[in-house]
Amino acid sequence: MSELVREVLSGDRRAVARAISLLERGERLDELMAQGGHAHLVGITGPPGVGKSTLLNHLALAYRQRGVQVGILAVDPSSPFGGGALLGDRIRMRDLARDPGVFIRSMSTRGAVGGLALATGEAARVLEVAGYEVIFVETVGAGQDELAIARLAHTVVVVQAPGLGDEVQALKAGLIQVADVLVLNKADRAGAERALRILEEMVESRPSPEGAWRVPVVSTIALDGTGVAKVVFAIEAHRAYLEQSGKRRAREVAAARVALEAALQRSLLERLGSVALGDAVERVAAREVSPHAEAERLLDALARKSADEVLSGGDD
Amino acid sequence: MSELVREVLSGDRRAVARAISLLERGERLDELMAQGGHAHLVGITGPPGVGKSTLLNHLALAYRQRGVQVGILAVDPSSPFGGGALLGDRIRMRDLARDPGVFIRSMSTRGAVGGLALATGEAARVLEVAGYEVIFVETVGAGQDELAIARLAHTVVVVQAPGLGDEVQALKAGLIQVADVLVLNKADRAGAERALRILEEMVESRPSPEGAWRVPVVSTIALDGTGVAKVVFAIEAHRAYLEQSGKRRAREVAAARVALEAALQRSLLERLGSVALGDAVERVAAREVSPHAEAERLLDALARKSADEVLSGGDD
Repeated sequence: MSELVREVLSGDRRAVARAISLLERGERLDELMAQGGHAHLVGITGPPGVGKSTLLNHLALAYRQRGVQVGILAVDPSSPFGGGALLGDRIRMRDLARDPGVFIRSMSTRGAVGGLALATGEAARVLEVAGYEVIFVETVGAGQDELAIARLAHTVVVVQAPGLGDEVQALKAGLIQVADVLVLNKADRAGAERALRILEEMVESRPSPEGAWRVPVVSTIALDGTGVAKVVFAIEAHRAYLEQSGKRRAREVAAARVALEAALQRSLLERLGSVALGDAVERVAAREVSPHAEAERLLDALARKSADEVLSGGDD
Repeated sequence: MSELVREVLSGDRRAVARAISLLERGERLDELMAQGGHAHLVGITGPPGVGKSTLLNHLALAYRQRGVQVGILAVDPSSPFGGGALLGDRIRMRDLARDPGVFIRSMSTRGAVGGLALATGEAARVLEVAGYEVIFVETVGAGQDELAIARLAHTVVVVQAPGLGDEVQALKAGLIQVADVLVLNKADRAGAERALRILEEMVESRPSPEGAWRVPVVSTIALDGTGVAKVVFAIEAHRAYLEQSGKRRAREVAAARVALEAALQRSLLERLGSVALGDAVERVAAREVSPHAEAERLLDALARKSADEVLSGGDD
């Protein structure tokens, strides 16, 4: 076992930070990734401005009061184009950051489509191996990448707030279908009752087969902590449901699929090499060939190269 | 040349609709994708609720008044989890939908990461081949997939509105770095002057080498059309800049890279087959192996299979 793996297993914070940095830079920590663990991953998502970070702060404190080790991964979708955008939210977590039972990390990525989901899943694994028992993954927005990250979680908490306009209301429909727990934050604001009713109607209109999880809708005022205990209760109820129904395993298979597809993409691009890929991109840009036809040609060329290695006895 | 390609080249609307439906379902129209064209692709993006669709409606009308054929692709990030979310915005475009010089289409996708960017790029190509001269691609949010779609465009218009809260302000930083034209919509709202100043400061703080495009910041009130002509002027100025500076080509290479990487992912998953992939996912979920190690093993197995085909004379 490598020293880094041993240090992470012992819960060494600096080793955890180093391991996540290595993963962000695209290094592979295969031995660490194959370690077991039993953390509960909780995704926190929702549109900008609904108070996700404030709620998360309170949730983390509530788990800390129960003596639970808490990991927090704050995923910043804008950072491939320049980091630090969510710094304000990070600063609000200052109290937590001094607690040795809490590990907070902002995740960013430079790289391929799916890279952020891959790096986030790997970072969660590192925290799990290091002994963190509840790991929150906070994302902003409703893009496919955020939804991919939501699929990494065992329990997805979708946060909304009153009065964000019709387009947001509409967007909720997509997010709400991945929600295991729905939170209406800023419940003291104008329009809260109407928003709560809309959310409850959305939940009730979902098909609900026998024995399925019934998504709770919880009102909170995260600024003063109102309702936070109810959110913790809902998360724990969902965790118990997953275990009793045997659905925890299905969640983990879905997460593994996201991670494997992202890893495949990365390995494939590496094997093709940047020169061959660059030439192919030029041909597609010049409309000499369609992206699909060029993709097939690249895969064929890769297979032929492997075959040549086999024929010359070089690799098998 | 296939009949479908001939019909699309002749501008047949039903053929265009059919071709896009085929692409959405994952079919490959290689011959169509390799056709030439000279459309200008304009991405319209920004947070939910800033009035993108209303602005787009006016932009399209402005181009129609100049006799330009306009294509509109409205990309709906929530639809993999249930379509129709942005129906309200589509309805606002009813007047445009009756104009034979306008083609409007909502894009959705069921499938892999990057699938939406791929399908959107292909749909834009179909519209271009059919003779549409300006093609708008509207997306919501700041996720990586939305940014990938933005990279398909020649000109990226980022729309903001006053008073969306601090987190939105922060998110802007990421979006603003991909903006070629910045629009502050709802400029009659409280806080508009302050928001305009913030946007102008953000633009001025960007590094601006000699000869670089200077991002214009345009105020609009899309509801009554105020400022729309200035946005059209800014888009046309950016188009002229790209052509004169030779940077149009660089944009198209970046778009080709997005399309090729998505096509590679799709072709690879097809070649691996769902059975082998499912087995691999199970192994990763059971923590028998890391995602990376399993990805490498799958690629090795694929290469070996190709080699066997070569050795047995079956394929080369």
